[in-house]
Amino acid sequence: MTLAPDIADRLVTIHDPSDPRVADYADIRDRDRIRQGGFIAEGTVVLDHLLRSERFRPTSLFLLKNRVAGIAERLALVPVNVPIFVAERAVMDKVAGFAIHRGVLAHAVAGAEGPTVTGRADDAGGELDGFLEESRRSGGPLVVAVGLSNHDNVGALFRNAAAFGASGLVLNDECCHPLYRKAIRVSVGTALTLPWHHGADIETIWRALERSGHHPLALTPRGETDLAALKPRKGLALLLGSEGEGLPEKILARSQTLRIAMAPGIDSLNVATSAAIVLSRLHSAA
Amino acid sequence: MTLAPDIADRLVTIHDPSDPRVADYADIRDRDRIRQGGFIAEGTVVLDHLLRSERFRPTSLFLLKNRVAGIAERLALVPVNVPIFVAERAVMDKVAGFAIHRGVLAHAVAGAEGPTVTGRADDAGGELDGFLEESRRSGGPLVVAVGLSNHDNVGALFRNAAAFGASGLVLNDECCHPLYRKAIRVSVGTALTLPWHHGADIETIWRALERSGHHPLALTPRGETDLAALKPRKGLALLLGSEGEGLPEKILARSQTLRIAMAPGIDSLNVATSAAIVLSRLHSAA
Repeated sequence: MTLAPDIADRLVTIHDPSDPRVADYADIRDRDRIRQGGFIAEGTVVLDHLLRSERFRPTSLFLLKNRVAGIAERLALVPVNVPIFVAERAVMDKVAGFAIHRGVLAHAVAGAEGPTVTGRADDAGGELDGFLEESRRSGGPLVVAVGLSNHDNVGALFRNAAAFGASGLVLNDECCHPLYRKAIRVSVGTALTLPWHHGADIETIWRALERSGHHPLALTPRGETDLAALKPRKGLALLLGSEGEGLPEKILARSQTLRIAMAPGIDSLNVATSAAIVLSRLHSAA
Repeated sequence: MTLAPDIADRLVTIHDPSDPRVADYADIRDRDRIRQGGFIAEGTVVLDHLLRSERFRPTSLFLLKNRVAGIAERLALVPVNVPIFVAERAVMDKVAGFAIHRGVLAHAVAGAEGPTVTGRADDAGGELDGFLEESRRSGGPLVVAVGLSNHDNVGALFRNAAAFGASGLVLNDECCHPLYRKAIRVSVGTALTLPWHHGADIETIWRALERSGHHPLALTPRGETDLAALKPRKGLALLLGSEGEGLPEKILARSQTLRIAMAPGIDSLNVATSAAIVLSRLHSAA
């Protein structure tokens, strides 16, 4: 396959791992870019979501030379002001600090649209209110995660929320950030396209949910409503705690509590799996 | 906490990492014990399942010294002919070849009950027929996995199958073995208590399902029956393929095909999550 001249002309070959033009890709595993408002997108599926995203935009791409021809069609969608760096494997792995099997990386930041990447615990800027208002308008259930520190769980929660038409996710300040590389990867890119808000504390979130008029539905093994008897309604906020801790008692006391019936003697499921079961039921009943 | 004398007397301290009495724990990450019919159980929850299992039995335990007091009650359940080795962290990590954070290990093998650990592709011994007959008697849906090579997916599938009362799992010869350490861990130990059969090829499995009178229900994004319209019935066999490949066409052609309704533009979910959604629905409708 031959590259179209307009793509071929845009490729900038990197020979030196210390080249400052690829400094955004240094130490991929260990560097926290989120405080600077940036993140790394990895793999073609995630890149597709990034290119579709209204909230995030790539600042550059960094590709293994031998991957370029295979993704030429995607590259045509990359805005012309975004540089496309390419390198041989040895150079790329040296920059990243470990073996980048997929060979497709992008560095991205938040654009002008939507909430900032680094939310505030007290939501001093009022971003959360705007976010919840938008969620109510879009109609699908909102997912609210409390204390989910595991990157896999947060990524899987995004994937499942997207599959069943959730309007978005609110993650409190104890949750891991959805733009961590592994969370994005497990989300299959949906962390870049599904709306979310991260970083407010649970009391701030609770008060904002009251203002926006969401109906709080808290999932817990001791829930009063059985999922099979749940009636769908507009403006549902599905509240999820971590597997170990569950949701705080004061949240449970103020919410409609929901349980998923399980076999005798079993009372725990993975949190993202539990969310999928509830959201699937709501989706098919809507 | 002081140990009961009968437990304290059973502890055998290992000082030398090359001590042959703990040879079963050498190179935990890389050694394949399954061909010898053995496996490693890791962590207290998995140990609980092992001690409850009718199919598997521990041949020894290997514990971090500082974990013993905290699990003394469990240790009282370990058969008296099973040695309990203890060591300091440096010795244990040296034996295992990496850092064993949990500090609770058991080596186990299949007991006299149930199918062997290493099944045959052609099921020459007829174990699968006996297994399926037992599954039909117990009543819950049977899960049949085809081509699931990912340890996490197989482990999560066990966990979800157990949560919703499945009668057991059949895994074809392309699936990873359920006794791999990571699969057991992700299964939260249910790979040791839920009945399963591994290693027959898909044609052998299909013919055995016909003989046992199971009703084949194949999950696929292009399924004809919507999950919301699925009627529960006895003897269901839920057939699942891998995310990438899906189920073989010849299986789909001979089964009732089932789909999970998703948001527009989305047609994929994690396979264990999909199974949880279907099994939860069957469980609550039963």
